[in-house]
Amino acid sequence: MRGLAREIVGIGRNSARLEAAREAGIIDRAAGAGETTLGPRDLAVVCTPVDRIVQDVRSLAEGAEEDATITDVGSVKGRICSEIAGDPTAAGLFVGSHPIAGSEQRGWEHATPTLFRDRVCVVTPTEGASRERVARLERFWQGLGMRVACLSPEEHDRALALTSHLPHAAAAALASLVSEREFEFVGTGFRDTTRIAMGDDEIWTPIFLENSPHVLAALDAYSESLGRLRAAIAARDEASIEAFLAEGQRRRRAIAARNA
Amino acid sequence: MRGLAREIVGIGRNSARLEAAREAGIIDRAAGAGETTLGPRDLAVVCTPVDRIVQDVRSLAEGAEEDATITDVGSVKGRICSEIAGDPTAAGLFVGSHPIAGSEQRGWEHATPTLFRDRVCVVTPTEGASRERVARLERFWQGLGMRVACLSPEEHDRALALTSHLPHAAAAALASLVSEREFEFVGTGFRDTTRIAMGDDEIWTPIFLENSPHVLAALDAYSESLGRLRAAIAARDEASIEAFLAEGQRRRRAIAARNA
Repeated sequence: MRGLAREIVGIGRNSARLEAAREAGIIDRAAGAGETTLGPRDLAVVCTPVDRIVQDVRSLAEGAEEDATITDVGSVKGRICSEIAGDPTAAGLFVGSHPIAGSEQRGWEHATPTLFRDRVCVVTPTEGASRERVARLERFWQGLGMRVACLSPEEHDRALALTSHLPHAAAAALASLVSEREFEFVGTGFRDTTRIAMGDDEIWTPIFLENSPHVLAALDAYSESLGRLRAAIAARDEASIEAFLAEGQRRRRAIAARNA
Repeated sequence: MRGLAREIVGIGRNSARLEAAREAGIIDRAAGAGETTLGPRDLAVVCTPVDRIVQDVRSLAEGAEEDATITDVGSVKGRICSEIAGDPTAAGLFVGSHPIAGSEQRGWEHATPTLFRDRVCVVTPTEGASRERVARLERFWQGLGMRVACLSPEEHDRALALTSHLPHAAAAALASLVSEREFEFVGTGFRDTTRIAMGDDEIWTPIFLENSPHVLAALDAYSESLGRLRAAIAARDEASIEAFLAEGQRRRRAIAARNA
């Protein structure tokens, strides 16, 4: 409804789901994979799990006009961007994206027009992409209300391991420790802290694998940090416990102030 | 406004704050500590940090009518209940409570009339308390809209270590790992997961110390769980990662279904 596209084509395997999305007005037209080729000013946004993005970008690049643009919304960028950069057909057409917005829900029924508003989209251009194509992609995300940040795929993956992938692991582990007998005794704190654990494990397993070096480093830093807290509690070292909590409080409040 | 009390007296050290609360209509009358004695049907609710509750209950018990009731809202119950049970004056008057509701905010300005609605209050009677007094206290919490669950102080502390104290530690550690450079790249997932880290470290340090045996056990179980995920990622064991995330998802969805 923002006039960013003349026509929105939904491409997917499940034609019944696509047809329902079309009837709901989410897309203008449905197409099976391989049934559509990209015209000169077309923009394709690949929204498949991170372990399928490279092959989907390659298929779209086949037969695409050279002025078309392909991007993705994957939560890990390193391998995807480097593999596509090595593909002579796809390299020039592709610029990676990661709009940092979403929920634990799945399916077009949960689409919301304000999902992207005032959120950050990371764009990770590699050398093959023209400036003009990158600028066009940035305008697209900005048109949806996002602020755009440019990072290298490596910088992106290191940051997101801490800001997104580690929290997901932490939430899943917390949720797993609570047995049915204790369900009654969870408050809003627990619920907020573990909400993302409801997310789709089919989406998250490939994210952990794709970003494994940074995720492992983040898990190690996290263990090390919790180990320090454990030692302080065991030693009844009040000052160290307080300093630990005060540091978390300081950082989290700074984030709240920044994103207010 | 629910007609649960004829008069609400705020007792505290900071008379300016109490006066402001009175002007805002939160309390009917303000009093300094030691200025009020409890009459026959009075109910005193001690809301100080967990390391101060025992002494505050003891002061209130001095000179209280034998039909008065004293409770608290501390997040840890074991030592508090056993120390008070050993005090000849306070034992008969006191029944411990923990209304599982709150926020990371502090001060009467953040009071909300629906805070307790449909939440659980754990009541932890010890042998000294009469049935009638326990029943009266349960009716009080129910009058605020809560469901009441009776647990032993020990059962309470073990459960809350997992459902509340560990999540607080986990959130603080996650928040501490993100540096200012990365603040821009946090999404709603990170924000929800770490929101409770904004809570007051002066409240939380004594909670960790008071409940240290259960908190240490919870931290160990959490480390062990994260260690299994780490091993699965390092071994690129897709099935184990998926099973780990699916288990967190299953439990968290069960909690969401129960508390819907």
